[in-house]
Amino acid sequence: MVFSIDTYTERRQRLRELVGGGLIVLPGNNDSPMNYPANAYKFRQDSTFLYFFGQTRDGLVGVIDCDSGLDWLVGDDIDIDDIIWYGTVQSVADMAIEVGAAGAKPMAALADMVAEARQNGREVHVLPPYRYDTKIMLADLLDTHPLQVTPSQRLTTGVVELRSVKSLEEIEEIEAACAIGYMMHTTAMRLCVPGLTEQYVAGVIGGIAASYGCITSFQSIVTQHGEVMHGYPSNQPLEAGRLFLVDAGAETNSNYCSDHTRTSPVGGKFTQQQREIHDIVADCHDLAMQKAKPGVKYLDVHLDVCRLMTDRLKALGLMRGDTEEAVRAGAHALFLPHGLGHMMGMDVHDMEGLGQQFVGYDAETRPSSQFGLASLRMGRRLQKGFVVTDEPGIYFIPALIDLWRAEGKCAEFLCFDKIEQYKDFGGIRIEDDILITADGCRPLGEEKIPYRAAEVEEFIRQQQDED
Amino acid sequence: MVFSIDTYTERRQRLRELVGGGLIVLPGNNDSPMNYPANAYKFRQDSTFLYFFGQTRDGLVGVIDCDSGLDWLVGDDIDIDDIIWYGTVQSVADMAIEVGAAGAKPMAALADMVAEARQNGREVHVLPPYRYDTKIMLADLLDTHPLQVTPSQRLTTGVVELRSVKSLEEIEEIEAACAIGYMMHTTAMRLCVPGLTEQYVAGVIGGIAASYGCITSFQSIVTQHGEVMHGYPSNQPLEAGRLFLVDAGAETNSNYCSDHTRTSPVGGKFTQQQREIHDIVADCHDLAMQKAKPGVKYLDVHLDVCRLMTDRLKALGLMRGDTEEAVRAGAHALFLPHGLGHMMGMDVHDMEGLGQQFVGYDAETRPSSQFGLASLRMGRRLQKGFVVTDEPGIYFIPALIDLWRAEGKCAEFLCFDKIEQYKDFGGIRIEDDILITADGCRPLGEEKIPYRAAEVEEFIRQQQDED
Repeated sequence: MVFSIDTYTERRQRLRELVGGGLIVLPGNNDSPMNYPANAYKFRQDSTFLYFFGQTRDGLVGVIDCDSGLDWLVGDDIDIDDIIWYGTVQSVADMAIEVGAAGAKPMAALADMVAEARQNGREVHVLPPYRYDTKIMLADLLDTHPLQVTPSQRLTTGVVELRSVKSLEEIEEIEAACAIGYMMHTTAMRLCVPGLTEQYVAGVIGGIAASYGCITSFQSIVTQHGEVMHGYPSNQPLEAGRLFLVDAGAETNSNYCSDHTRTSPVGGKFTQQQREIHDIVADCHDLAMQKAKPGVKYLDVHLDVCRLMTDRLKALGLMRGDTEEAVRAGAHALFLPHGLGHMMGMDVHDMEGLGQQFVGYDAETRPSSQFGLASLRMGRRLQKGFVVTDEPGIYFIPALIDLWRAEGKCAEFLCFDKIEQYKDFGGIRIEDDILITADGCRPLGEEKIPYRAAEVEEFIRQQQDED
Repeated sequence: MVFSIDTYTERRQRLRELVGGGLIVLPGNNDSPMNYPANAYKFRQDSTFLYFFGQTRDGLVGVIDCDSGLDWLVGDDIDIDDIIWYGTVQSVADMAIEVGAAGAKPMAALADMVAEARQNGREVHVLPPYRYDTKIMLADLLDTHPLQVTPSQRLTTGVVELRSVKSLEEIEEIEAACAIGYMMHTTAMRLCVPGLTEQYVAGVIGGIAASYGCITSFQSIVTQHGEVMHGYPSNQPLEAGRLFLVDAGAETNSNYCSDHTRTSPVGGKFTQQQREIHDIVADCHDLAMQKAKPGVKYLDVHLDVCRLMTDRLKALGLMRGDTEEAVRAGAHALFLPHGLGHMMGMDVHDMEGLGQQFVGYDAETRPSSQFGLASLRMGRRLQKGFVVTDEPGIYFIPALIDLWRAEGKCAEFLCFDKIEQYKDFGGIRIEDDILITADGCRPLGEEKIPYRAAEVEEFIRQQQDED
C-alpha cells in the first residue's frame, strides 16, 4: 500500500459523511483488451478506487455503506491456473484488511448487495463510468442501458471535495512523478536534433516513463506541429529551424502524475520570430505563477494571462484594439484555444471523468460556452493543496485562421494580413505543475526543466555537446 | 495504406465468396479509455478491420455486402474542433476510395443498414467482439445483451482461412517487426546486469518498440521469475546468478508483430544446473524447427518436443518411466504447462479473439482438455505461409509442484525429491517466429538473436565489454 491503513479508513469515513446515506459502489478497473481479449493494455487501476481502497489488482469493487459504516472489498480469489500464468497474489480478504475494510465478499455477492439496498429504498451511488465493461456491469446492477447509467451527484461532489486537496504524502508522489518528467523532457531536448523522428523521441521518453514509473500519464504529444493541440508523434524527421513541442508526463508506480510542456528549436537556436512568441508565452507562464494563490479564481488568472497575451500580440502587430474588449470577445482564443490549466493528481486531468462542472467549477464560478474559455477545465477559486497546471500557449492554426477570416470573426481585434505571415509557425506551449501554497504557489519538481528561451538554447547546446 | 487497393478489394471479394450471403459488419476500434474518457490508451485498430479495410482511424465500421457485392466504409467526418485538437485527416469518402470500397456512409446509417438486412431475412455476420464498446454497439444493432452477441461461424472460419496464410508482403512486415525485436532483445541482454531493475529493462525495450514501431506487440514479460508464465516486470533489481527471462515483441507501424523469448544469466554465466536445463530447451527449440513443415500437424511437433524433453529430464533424474506413457499422461506438463506455439501475424497470438477452436484446430485436429496440452493454441496441419512461434520452455513452479506432489499426480513419472531441489530455479523459455515454407520452415528476422547457452554468454560478454 502507498499510504497507511488510517489514510484509507479516514478517507472513506469522510466520504460517508459527505454523501450522508446509501450504498456507494466504486468499481475498480479490469484489464482493457487491445486487439483480442487476452492481449490487454497495461493495467491502470481506477483513481477513485485507488484513493479509497488503494489496491492495484484488477477485478475488484469497493463498497462503502454509508448507513452501517462498513466497507467491503468485493472480488474473487485466484486459482492455480492464475498462479501459473500470473503468479501468487494476496487473497481479497487480506487486501481488505490491509486497507481497513470490514471484509471481503465474492463478486457474485455484489448483485445481491445492490439489489437488497434498492429493495430497502436506499440510494445506490455510483460515479460516471468511463470504461465500457464497467458501464455494462453497472447497467446490469441498476437495470438500465450501459450508456444510460445515472451517476450520483452527491457522490461526485463528495469525491471531488476530498480528492481536490492533496495531502503532503500525495504531493511527494507528484514530486516523484515530476522527477521522472524532468528526465523525459531534458532527454527530449538533448534529442531535438535534425534527422531524428518525432516517433523516435517519443519512444525514448516513453521508455523513461516506464523504466522509472509505470507509464506516461497520457499519450505524449511530441510534434513539430505544435498548432495541433494533441499532435501525436509521426514518422517525420525533425527539421532544423522548426519548433518541437513536447507535452509529456510520467505516472509513478503509485499512479501520481506529472505533466510538462517545453517547445524547443530544432537545431538549437530560435529564430527572431520564434523567440518573440516564445517570450510572450514564457511571460504569460510567469504571470500565472505570480497570480495563483488561495482565494483567487483560476478563471481570473486565465483572463489575466489572456490580457497580457493580447497586449503583447498587439505590440507584434498581430492583434489590435482595446485589450479588455478583445479578451471579452474571445479574440485571443484564435491563438489560445485552450485554457490556462487543469487540476492534476492521480489523473493527469484530475477527476476529469467526474465532470468539469464539478471539478473545475462550482455554484459561484460557472463554466463558459465561449470558444476558448469553454476549454478552461479549471475556473474556480484556488485552495491550498490544489495542484494545477500553468500552461499558456500561442498557436497559429491554419484551418482556424481561414475560418475566422472568412467569417470575419473578431476582425476588429485580429490583424489577419499579419497573421497570414505566421501560418507555418506551428505552436508554442510552456507547461508546469504548480502547488497552491498558503500564500501563493510553487512549481513542483525539485529540478526545474529550463523554459526561458535563452536557458533552453543553452541547455540544448550543453547537452548536445556532451553527446 | 500499407498494401495496394487491389489487395484490399481482393481480400473482401474472397471473404464474400467464403461467407456466401448476407451482410458482414466489421467494426474498427475506438479509443480505449485508460483512467477517464479522454485519456485513452494508444489507439490500436482492429486487425480484421485492418486486413479488409486498411484504415487506421478510430470510429469506422466496414460493411461487406455479400449479395450486392458492394462494400461501405461507415464513419463520420471530423469537424473544426477535431482539427484543432487532432489535426486534419482524410474524409471517410476518400478513405473508402483508397481501399476500393463503394463509398462512405455516416455512422447514423449503420443501424438502418443492419435493420433493413434483417427485415429482408438476410443474415448479419459479426465476429466475436472483444472491446466492450463494440459489444454494446453490436448488441444495440442486433437487439441483444452486450455480453450475448452471437458471432457468425461462417464469417469466423472465412476470416481465419484468409488471414492464416501470410502473403509475401505480410511476411516482409513481420520481418520488419523481428528487426525491432532483435534490438529489444539484444538490448535486454546488454542490460542483464546485477542492480538494474526488471522495470528499468522493460522500459528501455518498450521505448525501442515505440521508437521504431508503434507499440510492443503485448505487455513485455521481463522477469527473474520465469516460472510465472506472464511475469510482468517488477521493481526488483537483477541478482547475479539468477535467470532473466525476457519475452517481448514489437509491432510495426502497420501493426505486424514479432514475439521472441530469451533467458539470460544475470551476471553473464549460466550455472551448471541452468545450462543443463537451457540446453534441453534449446534442443527442443531446434527439434521443432526440424519437424515443422507443410502437412505436419503442429500438435505432433509439440508432442515430439514433449518426448525429447521427457527423455532429457529422465537423464537428469527429474522424470522416470516410459517416455511415451509419460507424455500420454501429460507428466511433462508439470515443467511445460503451455503449448509449443501459436499463430502470429497482425495479432501476436494471431486471430486468438476469433476462437482457438477455429484458428488452431479444425475438423481433423481437435483441441485437448488435458492440462498443458489444452494450452496448445495451434495444433492443426501446417500450410505454406503460416507463421507460428516455436517456444518450448521448462519451468519449476513451486505451487504446481506442491499440488501435484500432494495429489500424487503422475507420480510414476515424476521424481519429486529431485524436483524439490529445483524449486528456486525459475524458468527458461526460448522463442522464435518461424515461417512455414514449401518444404520446411525458417526463422523470421534477418539477424538472429543468440539463443544457445554459449552464444548467449559470449554475446553478453561482448556487449557489456563495450559499455
